[in-house]
Amino acid sequence: MIGIFDSGLGGLTVVKAVMQQLPGYDLVYFGDTARTPYGPKSASTVTGYAMENTNFLLRKGARIIVVACNSAASVATEKLRAEFDVPIFEVVTPAVEMAVNVSARKHIGIIGTRATINSGVYAQQIQEKSPNAKIYSVACPLLVPLVEEGWLKKPETRMIVKKYLLPLKMRKVDTLILGCTHYPLLKSIIQVKIGKRVAIIDSSIAVADAIKRYLDSNPDVEATLGKNNHSRFFVSDITQHFKSIAQSVLKRSVELTHIAL
Amino acid sequence: MIGIFDSGLGGLTVVKAVMQQLPGYDLVYFGDTARTPYGPKSASTVTGYAMENTNFLLRKGARIIVVACNSAASVATEKLRAEFDVPIFEVVTPAVEMAVNVSARKHIGIIGTRATINSGVYAQQIQEKSPNAKIYSVACPLLVPLVEEGWLKKPETRMIVKKYLLPLKMRKVDTLILGCTHYPLLKSIIQVKIGKRVAIIDSSIAVADAIKRYLDSNPDVEATLGKNNHSRFFVSDITQHFKSIAQSVLKRSVELTHIAL
Repeated sequence: MIGIFDSGLGGLTVVKAVMQQLPGYDLVYFGDTARTPYGPKSASTVTGYAMENTNFLLRKGARIIVVACNSAASVATEKLRAEFDVPIFEVVTPAVEMAVNVSARKHIGIIGTRATINSGVYAQQIQEKSPNAKIYSVACPLLVPLVEEGWLKKPETRMIVKKYLLPLKMRKVDTLILGCTHYPLLKSIIQVKIGKRVAIIDSSIAVADAIKRYLDSNPDVEATLGKNNHSRFFVSDITQHFKSIAQSVLKRSVELTHIAL
Repeated sequence: MIGIFDSGLGGLTVVKAVMQQLPGYDLVYFGDTARTPYGPKSASTVTGYAMENTNFLLRKGARIIVVACNSAASVATEKLRAEFDVPIFEVVTPAVEMAVNVSARKHIGIIGTRATINSGVYAQQIQEKSPNAKIYSVACPLLVPLVEEGWLKKPETRMIVKKYLLPLKMRKVDTLILGCTHYPLLKSIIQVKIGKRVAIIDSSIAVADAIKRYLDSNPDVEATLGKNNHSRFFVSDITQHFKSIAQSVLKRSVELTHIAL
C-alpha cells in the first residue's frame, strides 16, 4: 500500500498523479485537516505532525510513504528517513530534478508557503544540481486559503497571483516550480500571469514520476504494495466543505473517514 | 488572573480592549497558533481544542475565562460552562446585546468565519432578544488569512471585503457585527465598504464591557483576580511572523512563550 499524507487536501493532487501514473496500486491517504495549514507554522511543530502522520499510515499498512506537502517535505524529510525504515518520497527533490532538466537558461522561480520558502530547501537543492542557476523564490501564503475556499477563477485570485508572480516575471524566469501541492489547482491562472513560454513544474506529477521509476527498479518493494485498486482517505477533521474540495480535486466521489490522531 | 484564549492571535484585540477597560488586572493569554485557524473546522474538533485551552489557562492561575474566538464561542461555550466551575465569558452574547441596543431599524448584519456563521448562534441570539429583527449573515473565510498576512490596506483586501459585504449593503443593514476577533483590524475598510452610517459592533470591545460590568457587581470574584499589571502570552507554535503580528495588534513589544499542549 502506498501511504500519502498532506497538511490537508492539497496532497490529493499527488493522489491524482499517482493514480494516473501507477494505476491499480492500493493507497491510503491522510489529510491533517484538524491542524491545517502547516505553511505558516514552525519547523519543529510541522516535524512533530509529520512523524505522527507517518506512524498512522504505517499502522494502516503503508509500505512506502509519500510526503505530499511541501512544507512538511522541506523541514521533516531528514528526520522521517532517520526514524522510519521504509522508503520516504517527498515532493521537493523530484520537482528540482525536473526543473533543472527542463530549464534552458537556468533562471528558475519557486513559489510556495512561507515554511517552504523560508526553509531554503528548493534553492539549496537547485544550487547543488546546477551551481550557476539563478534562483528566485517568493512565498505566496494566501494561495492555500484561496484554493481551500474554491476561489479558483475569481478576479481577486487573479490579482493576488499576479502580485505574487510579478517579481519572478521581472527576473524573466524560464521555469517555475509550483512548490505547494495546492498550486496545481491554480495552474492555468499561474501560466497566464507568468507568461505562456515559462515551463511550469508541478511537484505532484514529478513525485509520481519518481515513485514509478523507483518501483520499476525495486521489484522487491513493488511486490509488497498490493494492486487491488483499493484507496482509503482519512482526515483528522471532517466538514461538508472538505468533502466538496476532495471531490473537486479528484473529480470523483470520495469517502472521507474521520480519525483523531 | 483573567485567562483569555483564541485560535491564534486575533484574540489579542480582546486583550487590548480588556487592558483599556480594565487596566492593571493580571492576565494570561493562550493563542493556539499550532492548530489555527478554527474557523473552517468542525464543531467537535473546535470544542476539544477549547477544553484543552481552558484547562491550560486554569493551570496557569486564571480565575475567569474569556473565549476570545467567535468560532470557539459559537460551538463550545455550553460545554465549557458545563465542565468548568469558573465564569466563562465569550464574544458572542455581549456583541448581540450591543447590536440590539444600537440598531434603530433592527436590520442587523453579521460577518464571521464559516464555523461561526454555520453555527447560527448570532442569528438565534438576536432573534431571542429582538424577535422582529431582520438578520443577514455572511461567512468571510478569507479575511482571517488576509489579516494574518498583514494585508490590512492592500487593494486585494479592499476588493474581497467589498465582495463579501455587497449582499449586506443591498439589504441595507443599519448595524454590522464583526463576528470574528480578527476583523477589528479591518474596521476602517469595512466601514468604508458597508457605508459610513452603519454602526459597527466590535465583539472585542463588547466582551470587555461585559466583563467590567460583571466584576463591578461581583466583588468576590473581582478580589481573586490580582491587579499587579502582569500579563503573560503563551502560544502553541512560535514564528517570527507571529511575533510581529502580536506586536502590531497590541502596539507594544510582547514576549510570546511557546508551550506544547
